[in-house]
Amino acid sequence: MSTATHQEDEEPMAPLIVDCDTGIDDALALLYLLRDPAVDLRAVTTVFGNVDAATAADNTLRVLELAGRADIPVAVGARSNWRGTVDLAPHVHGADGLGDVGLPAPSATPVAEPAAELIVRTARENPGNLHLLAVGPLTNLATALLLEPELPRLVSHVTIMGGAVHHPGNVTPVAEANIHNDPEAADIVLRAGWDVTLVPLDVTMAEALTESAQRRLVDAGTAISSFAARILDHYLGFYERDVFGVRRAACHDPLAAGIAVGDVALETAPVVDVVVETGEGPARGATIADTRGQYRGYPAREGAHVRVVLRTAGGFADRLVDRLCAPEAAEHVA
Amino acid sequence: MSTATHQEDEEPMAPLIVDCDTGIDDALALLYLLRDPAVDLRAVTTVFGNVDAATAADNTLRVLELAGRADIPVAVGARSNWRGTVDLAPHVHGADGLGDVGLPAPSATPVAEPAAELIVRTARENPGNLHLLAVGPLTNLATALLLEPELPRLVSHVTIMGGAVHHPGNVTPVAEANIHNDPEAADIVLRAGWDVTLVPLDVTMAEALTESAQRRLVDAGTAISSFAARILDHYLGFYERDVFGVRRAACHDPLAAGIAVGDVALETAPVVDVVVETGEGPARGATIADTRGQYRGYPAREGAHVRVVLRTAGGFADRLVDRLCAPEAAEHVA
Repeated sequence: MSTATHQEDEEPMAPLIVDCDTGIDDALALLYLLRDPAVDLRAVTTVFGNVDAATAADNTLRVLELAGRADIPVAVGARSNWRGTVDLAPHVHGADGLGDVGLPAPSATPVAEPAAELIVRTARENPGNLHLLAVGPLTNLATALLLEPELPRLVSHVTIMGGAVHHPGNVTPVAEANIHNDPEAADIVLRAGWDVTLVPLDVTMAEALTESAQRRLVDAGTAISSFAARILDHYLGFYERDVFGVRRAACHDPLAAGIAVGDVALETAPVVDVVVETGEGPARGATIADTRGQYRGYPAREGAHVRVVLRTAGGFADRLVDRLCAPEAAEHVA
Repeated sequence: MSTATHQEDEEPMAPLIVDCDTGIDDALALLYLLRDPAVDLRAVTTVFGNVDAATAADNTLRVLELAGRADIPVAVGARSNWRGTVDLAPHVHGADGLGDVGLPAPSATPVAEPAAELIVRTARENPGNLHLLAVGPLTNLATALLLEPELPRLVSHVTIMGGAVHHPGNVTPVAEANIHNDPEAADIVLRAGWDVTLVPLDVTMAEALTESAQRRLVDAGTAISSFAARILDHYLGFYERDVFGVRRAACHDPLAAGIAVGDVALETAPVVDVVVETGEGPARGATIADTRGQYRGYPAREGAHVRVVLRTAGGFADRLVDRLCAPEAAEHVA
């Protein structure tokens, strides 16, 4: 286990696996983590979502090489949900998933081990210690739970970017893309008895990446910041056209990464019951979080094990940009 | 049609039918309307919900007699939803639905005409002019739509207390009681092509009836204000125990009544698509309102015909108490 620490007096950070569908915000989240020498990123597993699972692995390898971390293994996971449905998002992330900015092809290739098996093996090798950060559809995590029913006791924590609680959805009026892409898997993952932190649109939509962030990234002039500036430009275009009407982007996966490694102060984050609507009606893929205790400070509920982040202290987007602009001399060397 | 007006230069108010399940807040809503001489209340129809439909009619007759309006016909409607399910709320409204404060039994009886038929007949007699205010489950309105497919063109407007959009539900994490009591009927009513104003928990929970309201009602010392004070006392008890942890009650049905007669300034009330989840999963009875346009001022959507009230200017609870405290010399005489 890594002995790197955020501060000398802190506990070593738990080993981390990121499960993602590497599009633009996944790449920013990975770079945020890779630029923190205290983060012990053991592997990245990929899933269909923003792009197909193989492209997500290829994009992940490109991003790892850009950050000088080609040593981190990348495993390909689920190509679709269990119905065989795949709903990719090239209109958001570009045809290649990384804003079509031409990041060089990787020299490394994915490992042969499938994503779910890698997750289970790493959990067994680090019993009670592994942290999972999932920022795509939850198919790989659900598969891992079926492979190893003891997984909830082997894993220390699961952080998930997904869902919409009091905020509208982004693919239907009430469903967020990661959950909607595989509601059955999400329901399995949220019902498993492990400690989960859910990072829904309620908070990721409130963290704004703007043109001033883009200018700061351009001005920093490092390889990483320049790449981040170019993919952010593409992302701002989508958000201007389809969501905000101005050049402002949400900060989905990076915020979940920041929360996973303890960099974000949570203002409202009750532990409540959360399930997923898996029926065929208009609420399919909605995250049903029981926030009815909101007027009484969210009284504790026996059996509840999902912390839903409804409000943060804010300011994370600036922190993300700071990190991506840091001089690359400080880059982590494996 | 009544020629009474709110102000000399206003249009006469449309004739109104209130469809309700008379418990405490229904009674307050009825009294609010009955104390406005400009309101042309043609009939009250009742439905199961807070209490059974027959008790709702009996309670309505009691309230009408208290207000000196025994002349207004009351028709009994649906005893259950179409599945035969009935889920009453004596824990909220008392065993008799009116806080068990002993309001005298009525001398009048309900009319023989069933609620849905009365609605259809009154709409035909006032083509294009009738306003429906529904503050209970929507079974009677759905039945009326099946009796008369032209009803959406015969009715000028429908105001509904029901649903939860960005606010938690009150009977499940995402469903409000009126809609959850008959989701299929609510879906029929919300999909019919008439102009609907939906008044969900998002705004009714924000209007607080407090102990100071209760004291003002006691101090006013009229028959109506004294009755209102006593039922409010019961209502405050429920809300303290189950919802707020302090003696503060929501203002569901009265706010919908205030909105129906144009007494409330609406700050955020977009016209959006709204459907109801009728599946058997955890979102059953949720109102699925498409508020994804919130960042762009809710751009108009072709075919959308439900105005969802998400924020009012506030202050309605005070207005309600003012009205209920008014000297009874000013009482409307039929």
